Amino acid sequence: MQDTSIDPRVNLPVRQKTSLLESEGRLRHVILASQFDRERIDDLCKVAEQVREIAEAPKGREELAKLLPHLNVLLYFTQPSTRTFLSFSAAARLLGMGVEHARDAEMSSEAKGESDFDSVRMFASYFDAIVMRSPKADLAERCAYMMNDLADAKQNQRSVPIINAGSGKDQHPTQSLLDILTIKRTFSRSRYEELHAQDPKHAFGVSQLDVGNKRYAFCGDVGRGRTIRSLAELLSNYENVSMCFIAPDHPKLQLSDDMRNLLLKRGVEVEEYGSLDVKAGKKWLLSTVDCLYMTRVQSEHDDNDLKTFLKTADTSGCHLTVARVHRMKPYAPILHPFPRDSRVMEIPTEIDNDPRAMYFRQARNGLWARAGLLAHIFGKDKKLADVHADFFRERHDYNR
Amino acid sequence: MQDTSIDPRVNLPVRQKTSLLESEGRLRHVILASQFDRERIDDLCKVAEQVREIAEAPKGREELAKLLPHLNVLLYFTQPSTRTFLSFSAAARLLGMGVEHARDAEMSSEAKGESDFDSVRMFASYFDAIVMRSPKADLAERCAYMMNDLADAKQNQRSVPIINAGSGKDQHPTQSLLDILTIKRTFSRSRYEELHAQDPKHAFGVSQLDVGNKRYAFCGDVGRGRTIRSLAELLSNYENVSMCFIAPDHPKLQLSDDMRNLLLKRGVEVEEYGSLDVKAGKKWLLSTVDCLYMTRVQSEHDDNDLKTFLKTADTSGCHLTVARVHRMKPYAPILHPFPRDSRVMEIPTEIDNDPRAMYFRQARNGLWARAGLLAHIFGKDKKLADVHADFFRERHDYNR
Amino acid sequence: MQDTSIDPRVNLPVRQKTSLLESEGRLRHVILASQFDRERIDDLCKVAEQVREIAEAPKGREELAKLLPHLNVLLYFTQPSTRTFLSFSAAARLLGMGVEHARDAEMSSEAKGESDFDSVRMFASYFDAIVMRSPKADLAERCAYMMNDLADAKQNQRSVPIINAGSGKDQHPTQSLLDILTIKRTFSRSRYEELHAQDPKHAFGVSQLDVGNKRYAFCGDVGRGRTIRSLAELLSNYENVSMCFIAPDHPKLQLSDDMRNLLLKRGVEVEEYGSLDVKAGKKWLLSTVDCLYMTRVQSEHDDNDLKTFLKTADTSGCHLTVARVHRMKPYAPILHPFPRDSRVMEIPTEIDNDPRAMYFRQARNGLWARAGLLAHIFGKDKKLADVHADFFRERHDYNR
Repeated sequence: MQDTSIDPRVNLPVRQKTSLLESEGRLRHVILASQFDRERIDDLCKVAEQVREIAEAPKGREELAKLLPHLNVLLYFTQPSTRTFLSFSAAARLLGMGVEHARDAEMSSEAKGESDFDSVRMFASYFDAIVMRSPKADLAERCAYMMNDLADAKQNQRSVPIINAGSGKDQHPTQSLLDILTIKRTFSRSRYEELHAQDPKHAFGVSQLDVGNKRYAFCGDVGRGRTIRSLAELLSNYENVSMCFIAPDHPKLQLSDDMRNLLLKRGVEVEEYGSLDVKAGKKWLLSTVDCLYMTRVQSEHDDNDLKTFLKTADTSGCHLTVARVHRMKPYAPILHPFPRDSRVMEIPTEIDNDPRAMYFRQARNGLWARAGLLAHIFGKDKKLADVHADFFRERHDYNR
Repeated sequence: MQDTSIDPRVNLPVRQKTSLLESEGRLRHVILASQFDRERIDDLCKVAEQVREIAEAPKGREELAKLLPHLNVLLYFTQPSTRTFLSFSAAARLLGMGVEHARDAEMSSEAKGESDFDSVRMFASYFDAIVMRSPKADLAERCAYMMNDLADAKQNQRSVPIINAGSGKDQHPTQSLLDILTIKRTFSRSRYEELHAQDPKHAFGVSQLDVGNKRYAFCGDVGRGRTIRSLAELLSNYENVSMCFIAPDHPKLQLSDDMRNLLLKRGVEVEEYGSLDVKAGKKWLLSTVDCLYMTRVQSEHDDNDLKTFLKTADTSGCHLTVARVHRMKPYAPILHPFPRDSRVMEIPTEIDNDPRAMYFRQARNGLWARAGLLAHIFGKDKKLADVHADFFRERHDYNR
Repeated sequence: MQDTSIDPRVNLPVRQKTSLLESEGRLRHVILASQFDRERIDDLCKVAEQVREIAEAPKGREELAKLLPHLNVLLYFTQPSTRTFLSFSAAARLLGMGVEHARDAEMSSEAKGESDFDSVRMFASYFDAIVMRSPKADLAERCAYMMNDLADAKQNQRSVPIINAGSGKDQHPTQSLLDILTIKRTFSRSRYEELHAQDPKHAFGVSQLDVGNKRYAFCGDVGRGRTIRSLAELLSNYENVSMCFIAPDHPKLQLSDDMRNLLLKRGVEVEEYGSLDVKAGKKWLLSTVDCLYMTRVQSEHDDNDLKTFLKTADTSGCHLTVARVHRMKPYAPILHPFPRDSRVMEIPTEIDNDPRAMYFRQARNGLWARAGLLAHIFGKDKKLADVHADFFRERHDYNR
């Protein structure tokens, strides 16, 4: 497989890429957060919810495990990420898939001079899907195009779906999917009623059910964090969304120009602050937002300029405190992609028991989102819906 | 989750901790060897034996695999231990559980400043039980209390069992369980008849069936080895038990004062020797013992004083030889938690074929003990007993 | 277990070893390529083909997974090899086996002074087969003999099959098996008709169906590559086979004296060349061969003499080019055990789309070959044949 035939596709505008990554109306590869338009998000979140509801009972988990027992997935992680790794592993197992790993490629084939494409094509000989995380920015995308070429080849060639579990500093699409699933759940009527035994219209109004008509705040590593960038971009597809970005006073941590321009072009109202402890107009900023997305300021990257800044600067304005949480709306969820930094404590553990703290549930939503995604890719969403219907009809019959 | 709310429980006397680690009459977490009182040991060994007997036939293994197919366990080993790791993995698979690992936590989340509690709570989002081995002494215990707090939280929080697979220098409870299972099996009537085609009363007397009324010898790293300490403590709960401790002439290797005091307080007769090649009264020491527990003297720890001693001292008195084994009672089992040291050879390979050499069977007993433990924790012991009864009724019917 | 009782068997002539590695007419351990005589190859390739054909349908994969669901295999790789590792893992999963790994033995038991034999015997306590790859030349063989001794022991001792997944520089028997399976498939009537919609007699004549009556070329690291040595030896069992060896001009890379002597003794016609770009008589060498086996010249070994040679020598004569492939017979397959070297490009990626390029299919054949081998070892070949017959009868009935 040659890079020269792949480069033109990598250089296409994002909107043109998405159709290359689909097949027969469903996602074939999952590479870019931009593949998730509103319709797709609604569909994938519905599937994820079905997985979650079925999985609540042991018998349901046995049914789920019958969906894809004949398939094996390879988790090919040349960049370590225990959390994402385990989440994908558990999600695949939920559907009955076999799970294998390749983590230390540098120890064997790559040391022998093998190209990334040869490695991935070989892995595709043995496995039915490849979930890959790599420090190389475009690698997952390039592998997806290689798989497309193999599927199109005259001779019958093996081709499997590629799922991006984080590539370089740019894309981590399944993180965005679980973030938005968490937001949708938080603002769903049934979920709110379950948690609060109250009609949500008394709390946040019917127009705020679902993702639109809200004020979102993003705090921490606004400039570099791919989770904030991807989520903000997805949210910008919804109507009447405004966004506040709170970052320490360093250009690499603050909202980038291209991101600001993209959001403004899409009609998003954008505000920027240097601390959570400020007022927006006459009110405390935090009392005005419907959802707060916190992130860790990453200090392990090789950026001496920023490291020096972080050693001396006071970034405590970008950390949550119990007092600050008190200012928030009673229903406003606090999200965090985790890990949080236990040394600087951008979210102190005292807050974990607050009902607004959603970050652990958010992680568990990753399980449902990723399992639902795999079911979708392999065309089992219809079967899943049947299982769901049967399962709850039976429970209903049983409970009568 | 905060350490400050957990510290008081870590500092409780052991007897008070055990009830914190139980739930509805069964073990919820397995953290301390002291959780195994005589009644619990009898129960867990019965379950382990049932697993073993069912597993003998391929069809039995298929039945076992139906017990917990809907559950996934995470083996979280930040301290390497190939043997314990594989034993837990095989045990969980025996019950149909999915098995995943996290070994290199230091490479990802922890490098990002994540606390141990956040890591473990995250893992609990994806898996149904966490088997953990850590160099940090109390970590598994603290995580168990965190899980208790989550189960008690007002909002429905995810909480899973924690199983200690070795923490620091102190606790390795499942090793103690498999040790005592090996002793019980060795001294069971059916096992003795099977091996020797002879009623055991001709060999060691009916009073010696089971664990009590025996003279145990422990040899090697008496002072530091957690296996010896835990097993001796468990055995001290049985009636009429005496113990000999044989260790090289260094205070760190010899019986510690606190251990001696604990055993004496419980009425155990304690003798101490510097070599296996001595007389106890008029008889060779080894001819007087009913069970010999050997251990490796660990030299890989950072203890320069001890390293110097081990380089120059003659520790051969604490090694078995064929001649020494000849002095032993014909039924007295030789145990060793393994690995043995192939450089100093505390048990030479010539002894492996001796019918008293139990150390490889002991390892295999670990499989049954750990599978039985998982069945117990997840409330499948009743179901297992049914499978066992059905299975042997069918075989019996078939053989008539 | 003692080395002294095993040494005599390691030193036996190869022909006498093979019976030690069998049991009741089937392979018990797989250690040496020489275990594959023509009859065994025919049998194992038939089994592999059945696996492949059944696995084409999801329902077939479910049937395959019912063959060995009660067994767990350990992949014990102390020498890294991502490709072989994943191939065995996927093959075992195909039959429903559980798969576990031990890769970093040096980190735990071995650091504690445990012998290889103790480690492997321990692993056999937990798992039902051990696939091992080791830098130690005879280790797998020695472990197989240890397992034989355990099976023969008076007391019932646990003994499991050992499968060599590459040991030292010498043996990698399953690679040879998949190589020869690929050759057999390429020259089978049904396969040729499927690919070319033409009776193969028009292409290469009926006498060339199957492996014999052919001219094979081996190019690259002829002297050191164990894949070439093993395959050439297996092919020498077939009638009317001639072989050309093409290697750079360095004695360590060229055909070794012992190999040349063995082939000549078996009546193989042997030719040796320094480049693919030469004539054999009046024709281009490549236009005369029926099958070309390429290999990578390994430069990561510690051999300064050779490293210096490789830095300065022009080895391009031992690389394929599009022009050279054009000279080849239209049906002649190009094999490569992979990985190929992306820096020197012994096979440029332009050739991947040529219908003669078999190297990716060859890798996939490894899956079928290894799954078939496991089915054979555990006596499931008969059951597999039944599944195959049922499966295709049903499909046939359905299609009528």
